[in-house]
Amino acid sequence: MKLTIFKTLFAFGVVLGLSHQALAQNAKATEPLPSWNDGAAKKSILDFVRRVTTKGGPDFVPVAERIATFDNDGTLWSEQPPISFQGAFIFDRVRALAPQHPEWKTKQPFKGVLENDMKAVGAAGEAGLIELALATHAGMTTDEFDRIVKDWLATARHPKFNRPYTDLIYQPMLELLAFLRANDFKTYIVSGGGIEFVRAYSEKYYGIPPEQVIGSSIVTKFEVRDDKPVLVREPKVDFVDDKEGKVIGINKFIGRRPIAAFGNSDGDFAMLQWVTSGTGARFGLLVHHTDAAREFAYDRTSIAGRLDRGLEEAPKRGWTVVDMAKDWNHVFAFETK
Amino acid sequence: MKLTIFKTLFAFGVVLGLSHQALAQNAKATEPLPSWNDGAAKKSILDFVRRVTTKGGPDFVPVAERIATFDNDGTLWSEQPPISFQGAFIFDRVRALAPQHPEWKTKQPFKGVLENDMKAVGAAGEAGLIELALATHAGMTTDEFDRIVKDWLATARHPKFNRPYTDLIYQPMLELLAFLRANDFKTYIVSGGGIEFVRAYSEKYYGIPPEQVIGSSIVTKFEVRDDKPVLVREPKVDFVDDKEGKVIGINKFIGRRPIAAFGNSDGDFAMLQWVTSGTGARFGLLVHHTDAAREFAYDRTSIAGRLDRGLEEAPKRGWTVVDMAKDWNHVFAFETK
Repeated sequence: MKLTIFKTLFAFGVVLGLSHQALAQNAKATEPLPSWNDGAAKKSILDFVRRVTTKGGPDFVPVAERIATFDNDGTLWSEQPPISFQGAFIFDRVRALAPQHPEWKTKQPFKGVLENDMKAVGAAGEAGLIELALATHAGMTTDEFDRIVKDWLATARHPKFNRPYTDLIYQPMLELLAFLRANDFKTYIVSGGGIEFVRAYSEKYYGIPPEQVIGSSIVTKFEVRDDKPVLVREPKVDFVDDKEGKVIGINKFIGRRPIAAFGNSDGDFAMLQWVTSGTGARFGLLVHHTDAAREFAYDRTSIAGRLDRGLEEAPKRGWTVVDMAKDWNHVFAFETK
Repeated sequence: MKLTIFKTLFAFGVVLGLSHQALAQNAKATEPLPSWNDGAAKKSILDFVRRVTTKGGPDFVPVAERIATFDNDGTLWSEQPPISFQGAFIFDRVRALAPQHPEWKTKQPFKGVLENDMKAVGAAGEAGLIELALATHAGMTTDEFDRIVKDWLATARHPKFNRPYTDLIYQPMLELLAFLRANDFKTYIVSGGGIEFVRAYSEKYYGIPPEQVIGSSIVTKFEVRDDKPVLVREPKVDFVDDKEGKVIGINKFIGRRPIAAFGNSDGDFAMLQWVTSGTGARFGLLVHHTDAAREFAYDRTSIAGRLDRGLEEAPKRGWTVVDMAKDWNHVFAFETK
């Protein structure tokens, strides 16, 4: 589809690392959602933001209460294949750490990862995945972990697109984040993924500071080394920020109910239900992955990002469903057509 | 001591409920800390803020990293007697709920509370206090609890001052919060007290929104009642935000190290140690309760707000110690002298 000049500039802005404040300025000054095609989805966003920002209007919301929460995997960037980019990070870490763990050669699910036997990894179930996650996410300080994630993101490549994973951030969602912030929303990520994994790149790529990232976490332990305190990551789950856990996480971290929520899977259902059942103007949106050509197509039976109940109930709940193939004229900033 | 006209206006501003933004404007435009006497403590604050906000200077800190964390009890408002204002709330709630719990008449530590037998309550130790806290803080939704705290704060009176507890907020610390915000700091509360207790009044009285309050918490459970989701407070400890827990809490909620920390007891030692051992300009401050006439005098042997190691090590760590009697010409806004 044809690119407007503004959209090109906007995409270049992201690529060239223009500040998110600058993007927000653009979002306010001109056409705010250039990668969104005209249609019901785009209109519902523009209408909602106009209503809650119209002073003296019946749906006006004070700035302090303009909180919007976004799922991450499948909502702000891709999540395939097969189980989120953090899954790819875990597999890469198992391979990198294997020389220090000769026992992994014969122990599932580590053996499966090392032999690229995804069937064996899958057979270990959720417990197996948690075992892999803890083995690769614990044992270092929080600062060290941040560095490991940043290094991985700088070098790893997505198997389908052969590009850095951060290239797989959705351009329309970056525009939406900037548009909301230009209208004095505070934008939060509420991810089932690891909080410190997302924080390692959220400020640079989404313009979302670490204190506005909520996610799953492992226990950390305070230690003093040479009179310098550090936090050491322990192999123990602290909090699972998924499904109902997203509501619990939002209440814990933010302490008030957002007025808008954005997701793409049934893991986001409780969050959207909670946000949109509050009083006053509310907004819920689900990204439906319908675009096998430009990204991926999946919904009711997918392992990652399963979207079934959400599709079923969105109409009666008044939630917007984004049809990626129809509603987005661009998915990624790197597309040139 | 003599009041300047500005200080009077400032105090009236707080009393009259002027917005904290307006106070911040004042803080920037004129003498920022009128309730602070000239001396080493005030000078250390002004120097630090000047250094980190001087563009091009060696200690300049970008706005996004200007995070300041404040303990609450004994740092932003009083905490005596005998175990924090939330302790008084717990005791009042036990009395209010007693008709529904006939078994409390014979069961410690509830019996002790109902008979005003503080020795019996004390004998139950920390486990007894947690039992009292859980019995009074759980069993309702988060919205209901917020209402209960607000109602209590609106009616309860401090035994010594016969005033609402919120009158016992320290005027010099309100000025400090406003001054930091006027210099683009994000101000956080990091309290050993209950997160949802503090959030019930922090925005109105401190200008600190709920998402910038970190504290101890109990488990909440997601439930759907008549298709409306609610969070129900469960009688189970989720997180204790005290001592090393404050560092863990800050890392969990904020995800980066603050550059300034303010406390008053050894419960804040780890937080100050962590904050001030980072690289670049750092600031640590302890409020020392030396003013039995205007407030309370306590330190090394106090039950609440024990300050021993902090006093010992402040000089070598470069932390500012505020001598309330000497450094503050006003403690509370209601003082007229």
